[in-house]
Amino acid sequence: MSRVVGIDPGTARLGYGVLDEGRGGQVSVVAFGVISTEPGDVGLRLHQVFLGLEALLAETKPDRAAVEQLFFGQNTTTALAVSQARGVALLALARAGVPVCEVTPSQVKQAVAGWGRADKRQVQLMVARLLNLDRVPEPDDAADALAVAWSALGADGRRR
Amino acid sequence: MSRVVGIDPGTARLGYGVLDEGRGGQVSVVAFGVISTEPGDVGLRLHQVFLGLEALLAETKPDRAAVEQLFFGQNTTTALAVSQARGVALLALARAGVPVCEVTPSQVKQAVAGWGRADKRQVQLMVARLLNLDRVPEPDDAADALAVAWSALGADGRRR
Repeated sequence: MSRVVGIDPGTARLGYGVLDEGRGGQVSVVAFGVISTEPGDVGLRLHQVFLGLEALLAETKPDRAAVEQLFFGQNTTTALAVSQARGVALLALARAGVPVCEVTPSQVKQAVAGWGRADKRQVQLMVARLLNLDRVPEPDDAADALAVAWSALGADGRRR
Repeated sequence: MSRVVGIDPGTARLGYGVLDEGRGGQVSVVAFGVISTEPGDVGLRLHQVFLGLEALLAETKPDRAAVEQLFFGQNTTTALAVSQARGVALLALARAGVPVCEVTPSQVKQAVAGWGRADKRQVQLMVARLLNLDRVPEPDDAADALAVAWSALGADGRRR
């Protein structure tokens, strides 16, 4: 069995999703949610993200992690802020000895929705369906993190 | 007396410069240099940056820190990588309880060279002169970090 944590980084909210994959390929949901931080000093927010992620990794002990690569959309200021949180997430993973696989947004869409240009909502609906959840996981950051985790399944040999 | 550390973030090299400012406004150099990391996994590099910065802060015990704000130049991939290291630096500062002042590149140029559009080399030459150093500090990242520290002097009331 192999456990993967998917991470959707952010300073206000970092989404996470933890999945187990059995030898036969069956997938089960271990946990998902967000680490939220209070508005204020960015250093303190990053510290909250770091502590929350440290606790999650200690509790769930994933074998590996998947983190989406960042690209530039319209909002470059947001991209820089997300990148800061991403650095803190990569640090927490390195300190916990969890190897990281970086996935692109189109790899995530392809893996989950079967189409590299699927829209955000399609991806979220497909995540719920693939994981046999009654409804789309909330908030969005948690659903996105589950999609990222899903896209990294089978990376140890078998491809979906 | 007040001690400020200036930081020029990066994954391969993080520059730092530590300055003391006396009550009369006299400034002395405490330390400057770079924290260098080995090529390889970005998480491990960020961890080296984090550990190096933790050690520097424990040793020099600055009262506050100055970190340059990032803007987008030509190379957006570099900006994202620098931003990751910047997040790790802000985390280390928050954990050490060091308040951070963010300065813009033009504030740094203005403070050091007297002109917000001075070029990189002018800024470095002026840093050496202002700090009574025989030559421009090397590598560039260390000189840049000293310039950032200089720009934050007097921020506790007196303005240069």
